Amino acid sequence: MCTARCQALLASRVSQPAMPPRRPARPSGGTDRPATRLRASVPQFTHVVDLTHVLRPDFPTYYGYPTFAMKQNARAEVDRFNGFEWTLDEHTGTHFDAPFHTSNQGATADAVLATELVVPLAVLDVREQAASDDDYAITPDDVATYEKLFGPLPDGCCVAYNSGWDAHVFGDKFRNADARGVMHHPGLHAETGALLMERDLAGIACDTLSFDLGNTVDFPVHMAWLPAGRWGLECVANLGNVPQAGATIVVGAPRVLGASGGPARVFALI
Amino acid sequence: MCTARCQALLASRVSQPAMPPRRPARPSGGTDRPATRLRASVPQFTHVVDLTHVLRPDFPTYYGYPTFAMKQNARAEVDRFNGFEWTLDEHTGTHFDAPFHTSNQGATADAVLATELVVPLAVLDVREQAASDDDYAITPDDVATYEKLFGPLPDGCCVAYNSGWDAHVFGDKFRNADARGVMHHPGLHAETGALLMERDLAGIACDTLSFDLGNTVDFPVHMAWLPAGRWGLECVANLGNVPQAGATIVVGAPRVLGASGGPARVFALI
Repeated sequence: MCTARCQALLASRVSQPAMPPRRPARPSGGTDRPATRLRASVPQFTHVVDLTHVLRPDFPTYYGYPTFAMKQNARAEVDRFNGFEWTLDEHTGTHFDAPFHTSNQGATADAVLATELVVPLAVLDVREQAASDDDYAITPDDVATYEKLFGPLPDGCCVAYNSGWDAHVFGDKFRNADARGVMHHPGLHAETGALLMERDLAGIACDTLSFDLGNTVDFPVHMAWLPAGRWGLECVANLGNVPQAGATIVVGAPRVLGASGGPARVFALI
Repeated sequence: MCTARCQALLASRVSQPAMPPRRPARPSGGTDRPATRLRASVPQFTHVVDLTHVLRPDFPTYYGYPTFAMKQNARAEVDRFNGFEWTLDEHTGTHFDAPFHTSNQGATADAVLATELVVPLAVLDVREQAASDDDYAITPDDVATYEKLFGPLPDGCCVAYNSGWDAHVFGDKFRNADARGVMHHPGLHAETGALLMERDLAGIACDTLSFDLGNTVDFPVHMAWLPAGRWGLECVANLGNVPQAGATIVVGAPRVLGASGGPARVFALI
């Protein structure tokens, strides 16, 4: 299976960076302290866009098998209320990757500050490139194109890419696995990951299953980005309904002690 | 056990309202449509408060036994990444109650619109009353006191109460069960629930395990409020760090198909 193969290749090929570059120090202020100042004031907003796919048991997964299940434990007609038990893998649905996902020294989901989860949103539009190349690797030029149009990526922002892949979410093309089980979906070129590492950014969001390429074997962006204290967001929806510049993303990542991530509710405020 | 007892009492005592009053019609606009207009423009904000408790396996529950468990399925030192499987009851931690929780005709969590989850926040401060009465039932007078100070509850808002109970979250006082297993924590008086039903409000948030009283046997507010197409939020944290008027609550409720609720990440924007 692809996962086993990838894991084996990964374990054999990739060496942990000795001292991954850390994200620049953030303003102090814990999430339980009185109101914590955001780095940038957010303009008045009037609209909201739901960037979250509906999660259901057949939601496509990296592994190729379901990782979300529900069991009804209470029924209104008998118990007066409805309730379900869920069993899930943290990295299912529109979901959060905490730094701990790829680094034992990284922050777990509960330790990522609220100020890191309410940040400006910059959306790279690579739909045209991805339409003709399932393995499209988003380049530093795509970032440059954005910056020519909209100015520099704002400090502390989340960089998202819109490859149009959210439209495929419940079809075979979302994973787009070939006969060998290798997936083919767009992702960030390793050089683009390296470029983004030089910036003071909070997170990466993508509309694909992973912000590394579907056919990667070494996950270069995951392995650099998360250990540096930054977060990821995968399987994001509706980025085409958000302006490329000027929106604020609110990442409702579950605040679970010790977690490496989890299914999130994500909004854009415009 | 209290739960069984309560369930039995509940089943025997409470009759389903024949035609629960519905919440006034909301502006049309699905969550997947292009940017959906909020009912009220939100002022520029500069601060964020995390209203979410950290969820962990010993988080107190309505049932009195743990309903959240984690199992590590992947370890960075072996698999190159960390990942956990969770098993949970939907109504665990700081969590969302969808209308479906107490009504088979009510909206499930996935069907609650984003515009209903980003709304003005009004906080009733009942800390003083609750400090001397564990069974304090929040009265219509408490709402009147708020409105004298801050004006009418804004249309479409979330009404929260701050009883100071969030400080007890990992102590016995949070459930505060007596020898018979009956809990004692503040909650809304049935008359207050009825008063709020007359207003055009989106949700109720509370810092206790339930927005009905701990010692209730018939859950009058749950049984009226949720079937009317409104939502609830329980075990909310840090309401003392939010102004009583003027903030916006962002409810990161999991968008799970058919769910009756789920652990949520909740922020206040100020």
